[in-house]
Amino acid sequence: MAILTKLGFTGTVAALLANPDRKTGLEKSPHDRLTLTFDGIVGDRHSGRTHPSDVRTITQYERGIEVANTRQLSILSEEELSEIAANMGLDAVAPGWVGANLVTRGIPDLSLLPPSTRLMFSSGASLIVDMENAPCRFVADVIESHRPGKGSGFIDAAQHKRGVVAWVEKPGDIALGDEIVLHVPPQRIYSAMG
Amino acid sequence: MAILTKLGFTGTVAALLANPDRKTGLEKSPHDRLTLTFDGIVGDRHSGRTHPSDVRTITQYERGIEVANTRQLSILSEEELSEIAANMGLDAVAPGWVGANLVTRGIPDLSLLPPSTRLMFSSGASLIVDMENAPCRFVADVIESHRPGKGSGFIDAAQHKRGVVAWVEKPGDIALGDEIVLHVPPQRIYSAMG
Repeated sequence: MAILTKLGFTGTVAALLANPDRKTGLEKSPHDRLTLTFDGIVGDRHSGRTHPSDVRTITQYERGIEVANTRQLSILSEEELSEIAANMGLDAVAPGWVGANLVTRGIPDLSLLPPSTRLMFSSGASLIVDMENAPCRFVADVIESHRPGKGSGFIDAAQHKRGVVAWVEKPGDIALGDEIVLHVPPQRIYSAMG
Repeated sequence: MAILTKLGFTGTVAALLANPDRKTGLEKSPHDRLTLTFDGIVGDRHSGRTHPSDVRTITQYERGIEVANTRQLSILSEEELSEIAANMGLDAVAPGWVGANLVTRGIPDLSLLPPSTRLMFSSGASLIVDMENAPCRFVADVIESHRPGKGSGFIDAAQHKRGVVAWVEKPGDIALGDEIVLHVPPQRIYSAMG
């Protein structure tokens, strides 16, 4: 009766980052382990059961409406970060520059993972993918501060490589080196777009 | 920067049902209006921020693990309920028999809506689709009690017609006759299944 399908490969956790302080902006600091509750990462400024709607959902809600927080974690892949860097003519794009909480290794096309995919970590926590994350100009500004002249290239360079946002299905820890098992819902294209 | 696409049609709310009492089983009673908090429907036994994992997620979790409740509401469409009834040789399948909280009208292929689709109701609430619901034998037993000899046909008859489960993005009301606006995430098939 289960409707999710377990994928035939696993990923691993290559980096973990958090930032408790809104004042320091988007950038985050590395950790060996993160502890997750149903609100998200303990000690990260994006944790919370709810959050105010912002420009990302402006076609649905005016700004500042309290909605469920499906953006508790920002997840990117090492492979896609390398592709973004190559597209921008940089040696590397640091996970901290793009606001990543989690960097994966070995999950192909992470940014294209189906919505509602479950990510299960060997340290015990699991996450639900809400959807692809969109490249934004705040990241472009951070990159510009580190690599002058390069920031404005980010949005084009990161199309469909900027990872996914996710939220906690099961509390627990995520640690460096954890195995990540993926379960995906049925896939098909909904054609009645109106 | 919004990544969701608003569909070109709208649905309407054809029926609303809730059941506060676990002892009376799956069947629910009709309402003109439901009030939703972040926990789900006020006065329905499936409401809750979390719930214990069950057989549906047995490939992920042993039973009874506390996980996020993405099954706050069971949604079916009038059109697919009619198709199920026709497949079973019945005049109708009552929404209460299948544990529906919400019956829609005018959303084609409701059961195939993409995971993470947002459903926005004119009375104010909005929902996030987790995924398709799977036909189960508990419903077969209920139908058998109402239409002896017919229950066992439910599981085959209801394949990909049994609706979706969803949870609350924005609290508020849902009322009979409400317009339902739909926003869907980017669609594509993830091919790296391993």
